[in-house]
Amino acid sequence: MQPPQTSDLNLSSRILLGPGPSMVAPRVLRALSQPPVGHLDPEFLTIMAEVQELLRFVFQTENELTIPVSGTGSAGMEAALCNFIEPGDRVLVAVNGYFGERLVDMAGRYGAQVDRVDRPWGEVFTPEEIETALGEASYKLLAIVHAETSTGACQPDIEKIAAAAHRHDALLVLDTVTSLGGLPVEIDAWDVDVAYSGTQKAISCPPGLAPLTVGARARDVLANRQTPVANWYLDMTLVTKYWGSERTYHHTAPVNMNYALREALRMVAEEGLEARFARHRQHAETLWVGLEKLGLPPRAPEAYRLPTLTTPQLPEGLNEAAIRKQLLEEFNIEIAGGFGPLAGQIWRIGLMGFSARRENVTLLLAALKELL
Amino acid sequence: MQPPQTSDLNLSSRILLGPGPSMVAPRVLRALSQPPVGHLDPEFLTIMAEVQELLRFVFQTENELTIPVSGTGSAGMEAALCNFIEPGDRVLVAVNGYFGERLVDMAGRYGAQVDRVDRPWGEVFTPEEIETALGEASYKLLAIVHAETSTGACQPDIEKIAAAAHRHDALLVLDTVTSLGGLPVEIDAWDVDVAYSGTQKAISCPPGLAPLTVGARARDVLANRQTPVANWYLDMTLVTKYWGSERTYHHTAPVNMNYALREALRMVAEEGLEARFARHRQHAETLWVGLEKLGLPPRAPEAYRLPTLTTPQLPEGLNEAAIRKQLLEEFNIEIAGGFGPLAGQIWRIGLMGFSARRENVTLLLAALKELL
Repeated sequence: MQPPQTSDLNLSSRILLGPGPSMVAPRVLRALSQPPVGHLDPEFLTIMAEVQELLRFVFQTENELTIPVSGTGSAGMEAALCNFIEPGDRVLVAVNGYFGERLVDMAGRYGAQVDRVDRPWGEVFTPEEIETALGEASYKLLAIVHAETSTGACQPDIEKIAAAAHRHDALLVLDTVTSLGGLPVEIDAWDVDVAYSGTQKAISCPPGLAPLTVGARARDVLANRQTPVANWYLDMTLVTKYWGSERTYHHTAPVNMNYALREALRMVAEEGLEARFARHRQHAETLWVGLEKLGLPPRAPEAYRLPTLTTPQLPEGLNEAAIRKQLLEEFNIEIAGGFGPLAGQIWRIGLMGFSARRENVTLLLAALKELL
Repeated sequence: MQPPQTSDLNLSSRILLGPGPSMVAPRVLRALSQPPVGHLDPEFLTIMAEVQELLRFVFQTENELTIPVSGTGSAGMEAALCNFIEPGDRVLVAVNGYFGERLVDMAGRYGAQVDRVDRPWGEVFTPEEIETALGEASYKLLAIVHAETSTGACQPDIEKIAAAAHRHDALLVLDTVTSLGGLPVEIDAWDVDVAYSGTQKAISCPPGLAPLTVGARARDVLANRQTPVANWYLDMTLVTKYWGSERTYHHTAPVNMNYALREALRMVAEEGLEARFARHRQHAETLWVGLEKLGLPPRAPEAYRLPTLTTPQLPEGLNEAAIRKQLLEEFNIEIAGGFGPLAGQIWRIGLMGFSARRENVTLLLAALKELL
């Protein structure tokens, strides 16, 4: 075989305003590119401890089992399910968008008997309807999405939903992929049992790791399993021996990705959570006003609209794909279309982490004005 | 909660001569640190196609389904099993070291009825004994390790073992984690059905991706499954829709890690496989001679000794952990100890990819001479 011919990497400088990945600050990219040390090197073990401490801060939790899973956000989702589900367990999933659907799919693969409580894509649940659904069987686990990346809706009242789950002896698993680092996520105050996220959204680290936190109730469930976790790579009974004090080899940690995550989390800590959430909110509000003026009003009601991801309703007949193509090719701006039942009806515009800057909002609105 | 206090990343410049990760060339680190583009950006789709083409070259295969799995080598191992195993399937694993043991563990988690054929750690199998074991039941799959990272032994006669598996209608799954890019791996010529590797060994890219290749027989098995793959993240029926021509979103690919892998694979292609294998062999031979002189003869017989990973037999009574600590702290050199039945008996010295350089061999031997 002849070796393939390729040229030097020569990428366009994209302005990433889609649902992720978001842009990455230069200092995070510098950290990413430091020469690796070994995954059992004392210097790396220190980095691991710091990453855990920083993750606890952004999750606002004291949970000891708080780690970056060695995969993207979807691996975090799978870890949040497979460790706590055994064949035959009953699981309830609240579905109001694509990621709820995915939770149903994943839970089923681990042998759970999955029931669902549904809302049309884009709506949110009341704690009362969740509690009613919880009463219909004996569920081991309730899974719900905090920030639905497919619709732009933010599920409110997580604290009440957690309380409802606990009244019914169910664990609450929370998807915070598009919320963590961009709006309040209060794992301990809300009493959430398991939460996961991705690094490539409001934390603004490249994709490749999935923050995960597991509370005491869920750790008890894990410790009392009757069967091994049906997934070796994501088995927290093994992974925690590496991330815990034993430091037993499980798999080779993605060393450089952990350098980058550490630096991205340091930037979150330096900015402060309140200031960071206010920044996301401020730029999102500017975007919303601008989109209204362009005749592209955000679809999600302001009461439960995500600051991190805005989903403008598109006028009928708009060739939305052509405009997205022009944004990318002529302005280097990436935004995304809708999918599933919302295909062609919305765009998905992310203002997350290092992407959430005034210059990006102003440019996007000006570019859209030129193109529409 | 108060934000944790951390300081700027300030790592030692390690000379990585353990079982992985290996050192990474500066140009690979530069590629890693390019600002990300979106995972569905046309420019990234081009990169994906190039990574696939380059992976086919190092695997020496025409297999269309040749991709980097979005996790470390262990995720590649799990992908190589979970896609082809359904509950109740009979699986045969050849075990002569730690990674064989892990294959047994993983296959069992997917409901396989796992039989094993054993050799003591450090030995290798004859095709005849594998064929005998294959005849004892109707196996769907045989898994074997090409390069055992726990022992330094290289399994010969993969071509004959593949033929034996096929005579018994079994797929051959081959672990090439510590061989790919450092010694001949001939997927098509040997007629291997599924093979996986890691990026952080002889390919010399940071850990975080797992090259995987799947041939026609195995794709047929996948297409004819009766049950869904019991692992969503690694389900190749879904992943291939993203890596194939459909480009359907599955999970967000680790964009920057793919930049780095592309660059590391380009370096393999530029060097040429023959030259690269010769370089690994040459420096390994120098190491072997030097170790003999120091009274630390390689444990694996030369007939099946890995060039990528050397395992010197340690004299009784040597405080091997103390010497490794000195190597790290006083010379910045990382090597690893043995584990399992070989704990305390061997070291594991890797000369892989960018680590396989004359200056590293000379320094290690000189440092050992000073310390012993």
